[in-house]
Amino acid sequence: MIAFNDALKLIKNEISTISLPIEEVDILESHNRILAEDIIADVDLPPFDNSAMDGYAIKFSKRNKWNIIGEISAGNYSSINLSENEAVLITTGSKVPIDADTVIPIEDLIVEVNILKLKPSAFYKKGMNVRTQGNDLKKNQIAVHRFTKIDAKVIAVLASCGKERVKVFPKLKAAILATGDELIPINEKPEGDKLRVSNIYSLYAAIKEMNHTPINLGFTKDDRKIIQQKIKAALKMNIDMLITTGGVSVGKYDFLREIFEEEGVKEKFWKVNIKPGKPMYFGVYEKDEKKILVLGLPGNPVSSLINFYVFIKPAIEFLFKQNVSNRITAALQNDLKKKDIKRHFSRGILFEENGEWKVTSEFSQSSGNLVELSRANCLIEIEEERKIPAKGEKVKCILI
Amino acid sequence: MIAFNDALKLIKNEISTISLPIEEVDILESHNRILAEDIIADVDLPPFDNSAMDGYAIKFSKRNKWNIIGEISAGNYSSINLSENEAVLITTGSKVPIDADTVIPIEDLIVEVNILKLKPSAFYKKGMNVRTQGNDLKKNQIAVHRFTKIDAKVIAVLASCGKERVKVFPKLKAAILATGDELIPINEKPEGDKLRVSNIYSLYAAIKEMNHTPINLGFTKDDRKIIQQKIKAALKMNIDMLITTGGVSVGKYDFLREIFEEEGVKEKFWKVNIKPGKPMYFGVYEKDEKKILVLGLPGNPVSSLINFYVFIKPAIEFLFKQNVSNRITAALQNDLKKKDIKRHFSRGILFEENGEWKVTSEFSQSSGNLVELSRANCLIEIEEERKIPAKGEKVKCILI
Repeated sequence: MIAFNDALKLIKNEISTISLPIEEVDILESHNRILAEDIIADVDLPPFDNSAMDGYAIKFSKRNKWNIIGEISAGNYSSINLSENEAVLITTGSKVPIDADTVIPIEDLIVEVNILKLKPSAFYKKGMNVRTQGNDLKKNQIAVHRFTKIDAKVIAVLASCGKERVKVFPKLKAAILATGDELIPINEKPEGDKLRVSNIYSLYAAIKEMNHTPINLGFTKDDRKIIQQKIKAALKMNIDMLITTGGVSVGKYDFLREIFEEEGVKEKFWKVNIKPGKPMYFGVYEKDEKKILVLGLPGNPVSSLINFYVFIKPAIEFLFKQNVSNRITAALQNDLKKKDIKRHFSRGILFEENGEWKVTSEFSQSSGNLVELSRANCLIEIEEERKIPAKGEKVKCILI
Repeated sequence: MIAFNDALKLIKNEISTISLPIEEVDILESHNRILAEDIIADVDLPPFDNSAMDGYAIKFSKRNKWNIIGEISAGNYSSINLSENEAVLITTGSKVPIDADTVIPIEDLIVEVNILKLKPSAFYKKGMNVRTQGNDLKKNQIAVHRFTKIDAKVIAVLASCGKERVKVFPKLKAAILATGDELIPINEKPEGDKLRVSNIYSLYAAIKEMNHTPINLGFTKDDRKIIQQKIKAALKMNIDMLITTGGVSVGKYDFLREIFEEEGVKEKFWKVNIKPGKPMYFGVYEKDEKKILVLGLPGNPVSSLINFYVFIKPAIEFLFKQNVSNRITAALQNDLKKKDIKRHFSRGILFEENGEWKVTSEFSQSSGNLVELSRANCLIEIEEERKIPAKGEKVKCILI
């Protein structure tokens, strides 16, 4: 049995050696992808001095009266020569005339036909309301760094830098196979000791949630021959990850570990000192110059999804250097049971109240209870040495 | 000019009357959609008494020694009759024999051929480690409520309830049109007073980010006739929302408001008392039994995206009854400038340090600075009446 931190480190070590080819996508398809290049400003940003307000552009002096000699709107610049006693109407974002250095907002001025007057209550400073060329970013500076996750606000910068096509890292391909004699298709009604297979659906969605590519290999009974064939075939696929569920506990039919070994997968660990999710397997399969991470999760649907959240998700984020802030420290609203020295991931509901973060956990914490998991919004992480966390104590919560 | 809260309320009022037909999708396609039906458990969950551990099933008594008479693994139940002095090996999740009521974990037991002994240090209680039928949910109870956003953990429950096809609400269709004489395509290099159009890209991504359907109508110069034709055509489309940028300020070429009126759009407000993003227009176009919300955002790329975050996003979440917790109260790490009585949305970087939330905002806060916006992770919301928020004060932050 291995400690949680050591197990996560082993996965991170291996995942960080996955080679990441680079692919190019259209900017409109780049959303949610991870940038594989630094984006360089190919022009100054902004590309020209422009007005931050609707107002009048002037050449700074101490006067409070000007002749209006023209107007400039965005995209309609005309090179007007401006004296100290002259002003030009200018709209937000428009290029400021060459001689002007200051924009006085409309609301501070009175217009009388062609005469402009400063309101008695108003004042102005040199340079006011002019956004100068290159102020945001100079040409050739980095606008967006490699490994940035591309969201709406980043896309705006990509567009401003003229990136019609964007270099991004590929989506990981993760194949998912569930095993277990108890499993039946979801369109059948469970009888006797059968259960509808839910793992392949939840893990499929979890991979998609991270914007990677899930491949559904379905489920199979605990038949050694059939499972071995499926594993053999999966390891031949062009995938980065093989995720299985079931067959890694200690029962008679838990022979996945043996099959992995026979197929050449190198075991890195088996069983982690956590609750739930202990019977987890991790191995690595190397072929040609490609590596497949093999993650054998427990058959229990709650445990397998929690293992995804606490192992696979952080490992993938690590690979793509994503510093995801999905942890919130909160005050426990009720006692939690914990007598052992395992790391616990308890289901909780996190909320902010009067500026303070709180987490309730009045769930049974049964690792069989998928409904509870679906209603939780976080996992409360209780470290190995910590026992009986009591109401009011601060705990770390992982958003799920 | 209208106050922020009143403006948002007007949009919410109108959006809440959008009719939401229901569509059915495959469970694997349901991820990130909003559930349009209550999901009812069609069987008890769990469907049978099962073991929470790998262990031995017994009929509770005070004894500490049993004869092992068989084994049960998940999906391989056999109806074994059990006496008080008999035990059956059972794996996690497996159906508990009819006469058994208790499971003792493997680690608390010693096995000697066919004899099972309780370790001297161990003890057991009646009912221990048995998950009883229907304990999570009884048949006919609601497993997942309508309006739940479908994520990986919810999908697990949908699968357990046999939902191969799921009723969800449709994606909203939002058409986006940018206007402005200053705009050029992103594959051209800006010269003079021209700017690459970024709004259509950022708003397209922002709509996609919410899992709705953006429709890119491109951009057009400030030509009244052409814009009017485009607006006319857009209002004929089967869309729920028309989002424009530019043309709603006070300049000579800001005639979108007039066009909207001529085309029969009923204005609900124009100009909001906020910074940035003041020159915002909202109107409603009714045709047949359909309603199109018309949102005229400023041409400034920072303002238009912030308007999306503070008006359009919350309104859509309101429509789908999504109680999204994207607000965090944090301590300001530096003074903020604010002398007016507008509501400000300043760009900030939010982080947790030693369990306390903090937000820095050492940005210029120029509404022209897209690069700053792209590097921020929140908007700091400063209410109208609040002036000069100082370092150390608590502020509300909206995650973006």
